[in-house]
Amino acid sequence: MYRAPVDEIAFTLKHVTGFGADLDAGRFGDLSEDLVDAIIGEAGRFASEEIAPLAKVGDEKGAVLKDGTVTTPQGWADLYRRWCEGGWNGLAAPEEFGGQGLPTLLSVATMEMWNSGSMAFAIGPTLTIGAIEALEKHATPELQKTYLEKLVSGEWMGTMNLTEPQAGSDLNALKARAEPVGDGTYRIFGQKIFITYGEQDFTDNIVHLVLARLPDAPAGTKGISLFLVPKYLVHENGTLGERNDVFCASMEHKLGIHASPTCTMIYGDGKFGETPGAVGWLIGEENRGLACMFTMMNNARLAVGMQGVGIAEAATQKAMSYAQERRQGRAAGAPKDGGMSPIAEHPDIKRTLLTMKAETQMARAITYACGYAIDRARLGEGDEAKAWQARADILTPMAKAFSTDVGVEVASLGLQVHGGMGYVEETGAAALYRDARIAPIYEGTNGIQAIDLVMRKLPLEGGEAVAALIKELRADQKAAHAASSLGKTGERLAAALDDLEAATGFMTEALSNGQVNEALAGATPYLRLFSLVIGVAFNARAACGNENSGHAALVRFMAENLLGETGALRQRVTEGAASLDAAADALLSV
Amino acid sequence: MYRAPVDEIAFTLKHVTGFGADLDAGRFGDLSEDLVDAIIGEAGRFASEEIAPLAKVGDEKGAVLKDGTVTTPQGWADLYRRWCEGGWNGLAAPEEFGGQGLPTLLSVATMEMWNSGSMAFAIGPTLTIGAIEALEKHATPELQKTYLEKLVSGEWMGTMNLTEPQAGSDLNALKARAEPVGDGTYRIFGQKIFITYGEQDFTDNIVHLVLARLPDAPAGTKGISLFLVPKYLVHENGTLGERNDVFCASMEHKLGIHASPTCTMIYGDGKFGETPGAVGWLIGEENRGLACMFTMMNNARLAVGMQGVGIAEAATQKAMSYAQERRQGRAAGAPKDGGMSPIAEHPDIKRTLLTMKAETQMARAITYACGYAIDRARLGEGDEAKAWQARADILTPMAKAFSTDVGVEVASLGLQVHGGMGYVEETGAAALYRDARIAPIYEGTNGIQAIDLVMRKLPLEGGEAVAALIKELRADQKAAHAASSLGKTGERLAAALDDLEAATGFMTEALSNGQVNEALAGATPYLRLFSLVIGVAFNARAACGNENSGHAALVRFMAENLLGETGALRQRVTEGAASLDAAADALLSV
Repeated sequence: MYRAPVDEIAFTLKHVTGFGADLDAGRFGDLSEDLVDAIIGEAGRFASEEIAPLAKVGDEKGAVLKDGTVTTPQGWADLYRRWCEGGWNGLAAPEEFGGQGLPTLLSVATMEMWNSGSMAFAIGPTLTIGAIEALEKHATPELQKTYLEKLVSGEWMGTMNLTEPQAGSDLNALKARAEPVGDGTYRIFGQKIFITYGEQDFTDNIVHLVLARLPDAPAGTKGISLFLVPKYLVHENGTLGERNDVFCASMEHKLGIHASPTCTMIYGDGKFGETPGAVGWLIGEENRGLACMFTMMNNARLAVGMQGVGIAEAATQKAMSYAQERRQGRAAGAPKDGGMSPIAEHPDIKRTLLTMKAETQMARAITYACGYAIDRARLGEGDEAKAWQARADILTPMAKAFSTDVGVEVASLGLQVHGGMGYVEETGAAALYRDARIAPIYEGTNGIQAIDLVMRKLPLEGGEAVAALIKELRADQKAAHAASSLGKTGERLAAALDDLEAATGFMTEALSNGQVNEALAGATPYLRLFSLVIGVAFNARAACGNENSGHAALVRFMAENLLGETGALRQRVTEGAASLDAAADALLSV
Repeated sequence: MYRAPVDEIAFTLKHVTGFGADLDAGRFGDLSEDLVDAIIGEAGRFASEEIAPLAKVGDEKGAVLKDGTVTTPQGWADLYRRWCEGGWNGLAAPEEFGGQGLPTLLSVATMEMWNSGSMAFAIGPTLTIGAIEALEKHATPELQKTYLEKLVSGEWMGTMNLTEPQAGSDLNALKARAEPVGDGTYRIFGQKIFITYGEQDFTDNIVHLVLARLPDAPAGTKGISLFLVPKYLVHENGTLGERNDVFCASMEHKLGIHASPTCTMIYGDGKFGETPGAVGWLIGEENRGLACMFTMMNNARLAVGMQGVGIAEAATQKAMSYAQERRQGRAAGAPKDGGMSPIAEHPDIKRTLLTMKAETQMARAITYACGYAIDRARLGEGDEAKAWQARADILTPMAKAFSTDVGVEVASLGLQVHGGMGYVEETGAAALYRDARIAPIYEGTNGIQAIDLVMRKLPLEGGEAVAALIKELRADQKAAHAASSLGKTGERLAAALDDLEAATGFMTEALSNGQVNEALAGATPYLRLFSLVIGVAFNARAACGNENSGHAALVRFMAENLLGETGALRQRVTEGAASLDAAADALLSV
């Protein structure tokens, strides 16, 4: 059973990022290290003791749709209620609306734990957090007054409605429409698919944020507006009124996260109310809906990255515990009369378990650094804030894509460690392998993250933002070189940084020469290359200033066993496109 | 829907291996190229038109156990009957017992197609093929007379019973026992788990091959004997008699291959017959059961390798077909007024699809070369036969481990190409991802394959067998260097061969110095390194002598985009053990 790794989380929080020093310096106001530790500890307890025990019933029973009503598995609605009572839903939400106003970084750390407990559970509130952000930044005071407090307390949940059958990665093709009524409200019509927790039995009301087009809207993404569409209309006194004209028409039968209802939502079918059309309110400006949605989406991408970290941690723990119990064969060097050894003593299993631990910690470092950059951007001013925002922007696609790839890889390795028992559902290793697989897909596929990194993040501030990050990584490398506990980490990081700079140079030149296809062809290996370097360098940074022999040994393992991949990735980026084009012409033409 | 890639299969058969030249030279007797093509074509038709359409019901309904009886999904028993009528079960079986005596290589090629059609279906007959081999080589003429013809025709199926709860990878711990009755029969007692098709409704009788210990047997693997235990005893005239004392007590609830019943078998519980104990007959010599079982196991490992290739091919086709239909975004360079492009035109998706195609073809080359080596060993004499047997022995762990890792990787990439639809079970991409995951585990985990390669195969003939293979690969490299259609393949292969030789040298030295743990720590990366080089070199070989521009372009893609990984793998092998040990001491000690 999962036990939240509160020490590793606290260590990463404080030493991979500058958060520890900031707390000492009072940069986060009254927030003290003790309070941070207490929050992490209590979240760890809740995730381990309350969420994790309900993961299995969630997977086995799943959410059930009947007559438009979704029933979540036994105990789940109550779990959600207790989770909200703990104040977890509003952890980083504004105090004005009842939140605790704590740093995003703390929210990130707790999200890791909720996801380790159960990804199907954790994903629901994640959408609410996104809705809170969008309303806080873009909604009118009236809408804020009606909805924000209940979303922050968790009394109501929020959803994000983007995807339509013909419009997934490409929102240009979006068709849902909104007709202005003239009284400030709109009537929304259309079908949305893959809506997470689109219908559920946790809360009395559900606040749908829906992308749709106004009648006179320009084509493409510049003609998309964002609307708030509640399941039940809300009276002025805050009580619930009529059912709105939106319902869940079907639910997907998915590979994993079975307890998370993935709904097809129908707006404006005339099923409810006298006038057809779901009543909605505009959020932000007309035709600027995508910008509002991106507010949510960036943080949602980091949140999905936390799913990767959470699953990877849970899979690693499960595999380690199995490998320490299960005995097969006698390890070389084990006493002759000691019988069979725990499989954790066999070198090949050691390699597997350490690879799992190392990849998880690399993803943790990148995601936490991203959360920290978001906080610093919010706290800072002027150029400093801008620099931190750029850092967050650069790290976000890596936090999402690298971590979710790691989630899948580590869950797969964890299943493998269990041998035949891993393939049997009873063990739970297979459920992690199934759950993990959605994270590289939603909130922008990992391919789209890589494209985002190359096409939008590399050019930030004329390339200076990425250059500043690489300069920091070089400093980490130098420090690692001087650290005796880190073995060849300094040497390996130096080579990997050369690979990163060569690949970055290639990308920058390709973009400035208009060779877009060459750049795009290398986007995925580039993202992985960048992430590996950051994952090792940031962890090495933490190892340098702080005594933690386990962490130092893990960093050395990362550098000496995992980082070598950067050479091949660099080659794919800088020299891979020609053979890719030739093979695509020969083999992929329709 | 899957269409058997008969041209690629025929090309690989003939040109990756020496089979094409052998046919011309008459080395395979009357077997002509036309007949080979006809067999591949008809197998392709059967796999595409008869097996593949039943895969979905197999996955969705699965096999069902009730009161000790297993019911396979609707249509499956009839599918099996038609498959046997086609003569496929006895394709490579001895003519003396009704088989067609065709080369193992053809059996390998057809197995790929059965597995692409449905892995849950294909795995059943695979076990029968193993049982046929074991009986042919080790059973008494009486047992052969009673059982072989019916196993070859497919009227009865065979099973392999090794695993017990405490004895999986380590058969030393095996407990099932066999008591001699005195009349030449034995009574078998014990529990066996994970028995594939241990109970089914395809055939009237089931021939279980069971490992068990005689009363006076030495401890460990030198005290294990092999027994034939039929579900129903057989009268002298060949008709079925009494039910034997063996039954299926439960069936696993698995991640995938749902239609393949995975049974817990109980022997000698007294449930059937008057005297407790399942009646069994010794196969081969007492206490030499493991040697007999290894006869089956080596070929079973290659057969599992074919599951990897089969799944990878099916996943690649499914993803390519989806990517050519699904339109999202406009690819750079596409006409402005052409609307959204098929996603197959986006460079990142091209990379994914080509990686899938390339990895599949690399695994195909290794497995087919292994099948060919088995044939040459059987046909040859003296030193030649010995050399080919050593080649088969070396290739077997790579055929098993590399191909099944590829199966998982490619199925995962294929699911990713489908985006959100891939996560929905309806599409079938998720089913391939689930099915693929068992293959790296059973018939010896991939970790054990790597250990086998390093500990038992590297030392073959004092290292000369591996040296001879590497010499051949060097010749392939030289030829590739001279081939203008192969881009930088020659150059990249040269570097990769240097990596392979360095890693091989390290392993050889570690073993000769008694540094077993150092060698074992690098076994898995060493297997992958060796496999990548072979996969590219063997395919380059085929590309050099034959006009096939698609194949040449794919080889170039392999070399320029995938082969670069060998540098990191070499580093892991030659320098990875120290940090692995240090991290294991710090983090994995119980």
